[in-house]
Amino acid sequence: MSAMGSDEVWMARALALAACGRYSTAPNPRVGCVIVRDGQVVGEGWHRQAGGPHAEVHALRQAGEAARGATAYVTLEPCSHHGRTPPCADALVAAGVAEVVAAMTDPNPLVAGRGLARLSAAGIATRAGVLEAEARALNAGFIQRMLTGRPFVRVKLALSLDGRTAMANGESQWITGPAARQSVQRLRAEAGVVITGADTVLADGARLTVRQAELGLSGDELQLATLRTPQRLLVDGRGRVPLDAPFFQAGAARVAGMAAAAPGYAAAGHDYLALPGSQGQVDLAALLTRLGSEQVNDVLVEAGPRLAGAFAQAGLVDEYHLFLAPRFLGSSARPLLDWPLVHLAEAPQLEILSVTPVGADLHLIARPARDT
Amino acid sequence: MSAMGSDEVWMARALALAACGRYSTAPNPRVGCVIVRDGQVVGEGWHRQAGGPHAEVHALRQAGEAARGATAYVTLEPCSHHGRTPPCADALVAAGVAEVVAAMTDPNPLVAGRGLARLSAAGIATRAGVLEAEARALNAGFIQRMLTGRPFVRVKLALSLDGRTAMANGESQWITGPAARQSVQRLRAEAGVVITGADTVLADGARLTVRQAELGLSGDELQLATLRTPQRLLVDGRGRVPLDAPFFQAGAARVAGMAAAAPGYAAAGHDYLALPGSQGQVDLAALLTRLGSEQVNDVLVEAGPRLAGAFAQAGLVDEYHLFLAPRFLGSSARPLLDWPLVHLAEAPQLEILSVTPVGADLHLIARPARDT
Repeated sequence: MSAMGSDEVWMARALALAACGRYSTAPNPRVGCVIVRDGQVVGEGWHRQAGGPHAEVHALRQAGEAARGATAYVTLEPCSHHGRTPPCADALVAAGVAEVVAAMTDPNPLVAGRGLARLSAAGIATRAGVLEAEARALNAGFIQRMLTGRPFVRVKLALSLDGRTAMANGESQWITGPAARQSVQRLRAEAGVVITGADTVLADGARLTVRQAELGLSGDELQLATLRTPQRLLVDGRGRVPLDAPFFQAGAARVAGMAAAAPGYAAAGHDYLALPGSQGQVDLAALLTRLGSEQVNDVLVEAGPRLAGAFAQAGLVDEYHLFLAPRFLGSSARPLLDWPLVHLAEAPQLEILSVTPVGADLHLIARPARDT
Repeated sequence: MSAMGSDEVWMARALALAACGRYSTAPNPRVGCVIVRDGQVVGEGWHRQAGGPHAEVHALRQAGEAARGATAYVTLEPCSHHGRTPPCADALVAAGVAEVVAAMTDPNPLVAGRGLARLSAAGIATRAGVLEAEARALNAGFIQRMLTGRPFVRVKLALSLDGRTAMANGESQWITGPAARQSVQRLRAEAGVVITGADTVLADGARLTVRQAELGLSGDELQLATLRTPQRLLVDGRGRVPLDAPFFQAGAARVAGMAAAAPGYAAAGHDYLALPGSQGQVDLAALLTRLGSEQVNDVLVEAGPRLAGAFAQAGLVDEYHLFLAPRFLGSSARPLLDWPLVHLAEAPQLEILSVTPVGADLHLIARPARDT
């Protein structure tokens, strides 16, 4: 049917379409679909927002009768269950496509393969695994939640070349440049929840809002990035942050603490999460499980060395986003993470996934190494 | 004569030839020459070693009669003085070349332009400034010595993603991987002098030798890299390192200290440099001036946070070579540089010149920012 390598070309197009939904599909995954007949695209689409049509439906509508006998490229196995919309597998069968190629099967092992099986049962040829790694990267949060019940945790840290986040006296504003701050704004806009700690909120007056003007986006992209607002969540095990802090003044927020009840927050329009914990430290794994149960796919932690260090020490970080400023802050400046280690053998190994220049800074993405 | 852009093509070839001498030409600059006639290379050459023929001579020999009426591309203005070899400007005149294109003029402002003037006086067309930035980068050390009398100082540091060089207990071996260590070996082989400090020599048993097997070179390249051995120099203001340390056992070395005389070193075959200084700290600027007077172009500092920090604080570092290991060493580990700073305004700004993956590590080259 298709020439060598063209599978990847069409799937890359479907992935690019899927990525249009990066800011807006949560809690749903980002999905794109391209329908190809006789080497020509006859329909394409992507999922925009939960509750709206799935990618396949958009693409089939555009293709109309041309979908008959065509090949559909989808970045995720078509759904086979009735959710807020009817199953896409049924729509593909009804449209008479001849073949469905999925980048990956449903990440939930309990349902994986059912969508393709439904298609096969209707006489449609199916394949899976084209550009799978790229498809997985696009939905790391959704996949992690399906597999573990917890969101994917990204920890953002701005640091100097000598690994410091702030001077000992706390001075830290504007270590990185405007381009890095724009990247951080976009990371926030992609997240379901932005988590911060009392230190950051008290010391820097941090609000953790998405500021439209700082996203560097326009037109439809800007609209998509602001369709949905990430939750702002403060971890404050000792209840140190007063309600008149800029963080609380910036809009409805959430607080994770260990008090049985904290009625002041609700009265001020904020949501209080009572969680387990000890010694003034909220149980972060419990927090993530709670967020997962609320269908949060992606968490961005923007906190100081203490809270970021606590996530790291608990093994709860999936990806570090390090914004490296070309500067030395010196040997008395604050550490990247509060994480005292004695022996080299304990020092955690990471894997650098990418390094991208952003203005004069570097954006380095790393993840904990898997086999150590 | 030449088509648009071909100047850069020939000069790039001349620069590539010049770079063949990166390990071997010191104290001379690295120079390459390509002679082109009617769009064809008729001769090329590069300078191999001080005392041997200059690049132009090799190229003219290869060209023979074909040099008449040709264009010579040279990465550095041809010399006009009698050194260990006769002036290259005269050789170009004698060969009858029609045009000489230099990437850059002589870096010594007192003699810059004399070689080209000599050519002009003989009726040869001359130009300068083709791929000049690349030519300057290739001879950063030679140029710096010509301009300031001091060598170009590279500081190599191996650090973790959180900016640490070793655990508090000193454990630090093998933070970076074999590919990074190979890069360091090559940096050593390019240097005129490798400088280290007492801490490093005492704690790690460092020898700072070039180990042929670890260069990852073969054939002519390996031979060139071992034609010349960089001096190994220990800065030891308090005379702490005993003569039976591996550093001294590995061969003839140099020691910079502040004693008026230290006869034990000479008796053991080492060279003692008596320098000014205070509070047990050798005056590093004086050390560099001394090395410059000995025609050292390039210094590589491989030391711990204290000595590297002292070079940094004194403003004597031209380039940082940071080998970044994908690891966290934690907040009680040792700092990158012993350089306590209080206010953000004092924090020195750098400029990142390049980031190159070496194995699982990153090799980051940065220099102090110029306009801050």
